Amino acid sequence: MPISAYAAKAPKGRLESFTYDAGPLGPREVEVKVTHCGICHSDQAMIDNDWQFSAYPLVPGHEVVGTVAALGADVRGLALGQRVGIGWQCGSCGECEFCRVGHETYCAKERDTIVHHHGGFADRVRADANFAIPLPDGLDSAQAAPLLCAGTTVFTPMLHHGVTANTRAAVVGIGGLGHLAVQFLAQMGCEVTAISSTHDKDDEARGFGATHFIATKGTDELKKAASRFDFILNTVPADLPWGDYLAALRPAGKLVTVGVPASDVKLSAFQLIGQEKSFCGGRTGSPAEIATMFNFAARRGVHAQIEKFPMKDINAAMDRVRTGKMRYRVVLEA
Amino acid sequence: MPISAYAAKAPKGRLESFTYDAGPLGPREVEVKVTHCGICHSDQAMIDNDWQFSAYPLVPGHEVVGTVAALGADVRGLALGQRVGIGWQCGSCGECEFCRVGHETYCAKERDTIVHHHGGFADRVRADANFAIPLPDGLDSAQAAPLLCAGTTVFTPMLHHGVTANTRAAVVGIGGLGHLAVQFLAQMGCEVTAISSTHDKDDEARGFGATHFIATKGTDELKKAASRFDFILNTVPADLPWGDYLAALRPAGKLVTVGVPASDVKLSAFQLIGQEKSFCGGRTGSPAEIATMFNFAARRGVHAQIEKFPMKDINAAMDRVRTGKMRYRVVLEA
Repeated sequence: MPISAYAAKAPKGRLESFTYDAGPLGPREVEVKVTHCGICHSDQAMIDNDWQFSAYPLVPGHEVVGTVAALGADVRGLALGQRVGIGWQCGSCGECEFCRVGHETYCAKERDTIVHHHGGFADRVRADANFAIPLPDGLDSAQAAPLLCAGTTVFTPMLHHGVTANTRAAVVGIGGLGHLAVQFLAQMGCEVTAISSTHDKDDEARGFGATHFIATKGTDELKKAASRFDFILNTVPADLPWGDYLAALRPAGKLVTVGVPASDVKLSAFQLIGQEKSFCGGRTGSPAEIATMFNFAARRGVHAQIEKFPMKDINAAMDRVRTGKMRYRVVLEA
Repeated sequence: MPISAYAAKAPKGRLESFTYDAGPLGPREVEVKVTHCGICHSDQAMIDNDWQFSAYPLVPGHEVVGTVAALGADVRGLALGQRVGIGWQCGSCGECEFCRVGHETYCAKERDTIVHHHGGFADRVRADANFAIPLPDGLDSAQAAPLLCAGTTVFTPMLHHGVTANTRAAVVGIGGLGHLAVQFLAQMGCEVTAISSTHDKDDEARGFGATHFIATKGTDELKKAASRFDFILNTVPADLPWGDYLAALRPAGKLVTVGVPASDVKLSAFQLIGQEKSFCGGRTGSPAEIATMFNFAARRGVHAQIEKFPMKDINAAMDRVRTGKMRYRVVLEA
């Protein structure tokens, strides 16, 4: 049966009905019936061809939650009807040195859900079975959707950089990613500082678990926070005053960006060397790491704050994302 | 008794005889009779006021090896006549959260041997007893001198970034620092690639333990080394093609610079994010880390390759350093 989807047919295009035949299901693939799909800024970036590797017609959607509708012949460990999530990555070679040790995000043959593949703004979507990650009971499907990209993007750097309860942490940008990052860190037992341009989100950030709040626009609050953090996670896709953020790190501190700034990042080597600081890139996790995040979120009550739209109102939902005013994430419901 | 030294009396000055009274010995200080002192590029930078914090008259010399000549009243654990080394740092507060756990390099009250303090181009030099680090038997005094700055600068990042025998490592710049870095890594059991502008030092680098050699000038050897290294240590104080070096890192790889480039470092955030790479600053170690390095060097036979000059020929020795042609480190002998 053909898959019924919404596609952009050209860069920056509106989303239109689009039907495609996904072909025979591969032996290690699953087909998932979409019940929910989050909208991510990278869906917008892909629609707009910001990164110059979009292919059209382009079906966005890589924060998919649904139920297993069909199983490839060789798939084990998943059952028809089971709730699963699919994120940015939908496949890998399964055989390389990275896949073999559960580092599928490093696979040179990584396949991504909306890159030369049709995503979750649809009634169904395909993925390698390994990338259809079971949802634990107690995790609401709509709230789980944003975890598949926003959530794992902020959670994985915490794993990879050894964040513990005594890490002094800051989150730059209190949006779709940041409001989850603050919750994850607070639930890990950290003292968390939320950093935003203004104090508009001060109360909400404290509600997510932040102990401190820094507003950067027209204040000296960031400069006053010199040598305060072991771990700063930047979620903002903008050119920041990197020197001020490096100064806000404690010795051996790490500034991890998951937001892609418009320009190259300029850093003072002297500033990095003096106290052995690091500037790092962070990204989404492997299936095992996403499963770890799901369990943590369910266990500790980390909830995405979402605005729901019916899937048929996809263009209104996209417009809402483009305004940047949603608090904090938009989720489509089938 | 006044200390007899060689000092630069103004920026870029020749070194001249200079005698000073170091005052009463503090209760936790030691006075060390200098037998050897290495010359480091940062001595030259300090003489020339490159970093804008030099004070004159300036007595350089922060790769000091000698014997304990006088002990402050409260010093324990050192004996008169004992061989010790003094490096870049000569003191710290001893009480802060960093000093208490052996991270004296992070102390906000760090005191440095040639910054507002007179160094080892002299017959004697003072330091906090904690920063006069005993030399193990079997470590030659002249060869130990360069370990006090060049050695610890490259060894400490290996400790702090968890280098193990299976780390795929590269060293950029085969000079005073680099020739020690190659030896340390090879003796740790790593596969080591030496990277230099030309193949001039190919044979020597292999003699130090390198398995591979990359020449960067007018070749595509670096570009061909894409995704090859877990750990790249840059010892060159110059603006490098950072993008090519980031590309040479494997997933989650780290590019650590201990060389201070002339300009800010420009990095592509996309390149860092895609495979979670890091750009880090590295520096000299704490007294405990220097002691660890001494023991490793003695145990595994890591030898600085040096050119010796009598201390009285200090200006000829400095001229030799300024040419950059010494292989690989200049050491003054009393």
